[in-house]
Amino acid sequence: MSKSKKHTSALSEKKGVPNPETSNKEIAKKIQERRRNVPEMEQLFQDLRSGNLTALSRAITLVESTAAKHQEAAKKLIQQCLPFANNSLRIGITGVPGVGKSTFIEQFGTLLTKLDKKVAVLAVDPSSTLSRGSILGDKTRMEELVKNPNAFIRPSSSGTSLGGVARKTRETMILCEAGGFDTLLIETVGVGQSETAVHSMTDFFLLLKLAGAGDELQGIKRGIMEMADAIVINKADGENVKAAQLAKTEFNRALHLYPVKESGFTPKTVTCSALKNEGIEDVWNLIENYWDLTRENGYFSQKRNQQNRYWLLQTIEEQLKDSFYKKPSIKKELDRQLELLKENKTTPFQAADVLLSLNK
Amino acid sequence: MSKSKKHTSALSEKKGVPNPETSNKEIAKKIQERRRNVPEMEQLFQDLRSGNLTALSRAITLVESTAAKHQEAAKKLIQQCLPFANNSLRIGITGVPGVGKSTFIEQFGTLLTKLDKKVAVLAVDPSSTLSRGSILGDKTRMEELVKNPNAFIRPSSSGTSLGGVARKTRETMILCEAGGFDTLLIETVGVGQSETAVHSMTDFFLLLKLAGAGDELQGIKRGIMEMADAIVINKADGENVKAAQLAKTEFNRALHLYPVKESGFTPKTVTCSALKNEGIEDVWNLIENYWDLTRENGYFSQKRNQQNRYWLLQTIEEQLKDSFYKKPSIKKELDRQLELLKENKTTPFQAADVLLSLNK
Repeated sequence: MSKSKKHTSALSEKKGVPNPETSNKEIAKKIQERRRNVPEMEQLFQDLRSGNLTALSRAITLVESTAAKHQEAAKKLIQQCLPFANNSLRIGITGVPGVGKSTFIEQFGTLLTKLDKKVAVLAVDPSSTLSRGSILGDKTRMEELVKNPNAFIRPSSSGTSLGGVARKTRETMILCEAGGFDTLLIETVGVGQSETAVHSMTDFFLLLKLAGAGDELQGIKRGIMEMADAIVINKADGENVKAAQLAKTEFNRALHLYPVKESGFTPKTVTCSALKNEGIEDVWNLIENYWDLTRENGYFSQKRNQQNRYWLLQTIEEQLKDSFYKKPSIKKELDRQLELLKENKTTPFQAADVLLSLNK
Repeated sequence: MSKSKKHTSALSEKKGVPNPETSNKEIAKKIQERRRNVPEMEQLFQDLRSGNLTALSRAITLVESTAAKHQEAAKKLIQQCLPFANNSLRIGITGVPGVGKSTFIEQFGTLLTKLDKKVAVLAVDPSSTLSRGSILGDKTRMEELVKNPNAFIRPSSSGTSLGGVARKTRETMILCEAGGFDTLLIETVGVGQSETAVHSMTDFFLLLKLAGAGDELQGIKRGIMEMADAIVINKADGENVKAAQLAKTEFNRALHLYPVKESGFTPKTVTCSALKNEGIEDVWNLIENYWDLTRENGYFSQKRNQQNRYWLLQTIEEQLKDSFYKKPSIKKELDRQLELLKENKTTPFQAADVLLSLNK
């Protein structure tokens, strides 16, 4: 009722007849609302499709917004973009801080634009909310790429959970693809499970490493080696060249120990110097080989289907858990049952039965 | 109402006054029910506590039963047993078929009984329903142990899911411990995730291997090396001795590459010949070292607490998923959404939203 009333007053206002019931504040609100209405969203979509970077940025902001109104608009926009998405190569890049990720992406991205590609650089960094953007926050570290008209750099969206950040990144990828970007570089510093998340949303996963002294394999996070399609040893310049070559041999040996990948592609190690812009083409050649192979053997689209399925089930299961554990009655009883477990007065299964019976 | 009526007829029957309403079938039922009443369960518990193996077997059968009545009785029995459980050492043993698990357990278990231990051998094999008990099904492979009064061997309970089998095994462990068994050997062939399950219910995890020709690490299931507290290379006899020694070196080198374990214990590789009963004591010494270390540094009970927590949350989450995906409306819509995903007409997140909205 109040809605239709408002509608009337907005109309009369339009006709130049001020309604005494309408305050200035309300008028300002109406104007703002009109700015956000459907024709404008259509314009945004068309601008985005035509390659307008401002439109792309605005669309991403919409996706990242937590306001219900924006989320609804973002949902529709993504739906419109979907038929134009998916025609891209998505490359995941990980490596510890100090490995030279920014410099590498700067050189690698520049090379790709020279090969007539449109490159979007995104990041998954669930810690960015706390650290105020530890990666890609400082665009100045990609001086060249940031000025390149065929490149688009967007820092990690903030969020309280990896799931939330991952969702926003996946949706941003769709917007970028609909905006004409054919090569996506998804960067992560590998906090918690973020490498797994990036691996699950990219076609090719690249691990940046430095040649250190001593045992190369030590200190590699569990499971990362198994995810990598390529290991790139950066800073292979000056006095480091020899160490980098040694590291390459050791990594190749270690990669060889793993079972053959479903892709049919054997992961490889290459050395490069992002600083001196050496060896960057080798990295691209490797990825191109992978791309050719997996499109031919069907693994490329098969993997994307698997990833979609993974994210669907993952999202459902996360939300099921979330809404269960968030219930105050469950929270309270969980603490009690954990205490009983510690005292050896119940079994995990009986405790689970009690908790699940509260979920009715 | 019908319940109280039945109660009356049972009473009159007791007084020797046959109630015309009570058929012979019903009388038989009453008698059976009386056999399963509280005093009998109390007797079972006391027999089990006194070390009676028949009582233990019956109690396990009760735990394994899917009948609601039995499950209720089992629940009470476990509750009674809990204060007497937990004082044991639980050892997980895995290895591919052909590695000599049965022979190893025969010798290892016999050694333990000579050290005045009471040894229970259980198995986690979710495939046993299909394969009709691929492990421990043939007790004749443990000729000595099966006759040993201080040993108890129980094949894997059947079940449709690993979660179900794991629950029954965990509950059986409690019964065995209350029955006076202080050393539990939990065997698995490593189908699917069963190694993770066994790892999560034991204090020490042992991986049995054979020395083969060539690369020892190849063909090891992902993640197994990281779980192992010890690698035992079996069949180190005759012509195999040299190969076993080489394998030992290579495994020790590989184990060394992993980060230090939370237990503070450095996993080790030993060789043995179960057939010739050589090196079995070395395995026990290793486990005893681990036991001493982790009881002293507090990790032993800390790990058990973590395991309880893990099984509690695991059980809850499995059941939340189960009851979600079992709903006919969800099932149907899931298929539809997966189809839309394949056609690139939705995103995993939007599909998840649709499915979750049906769960109200």
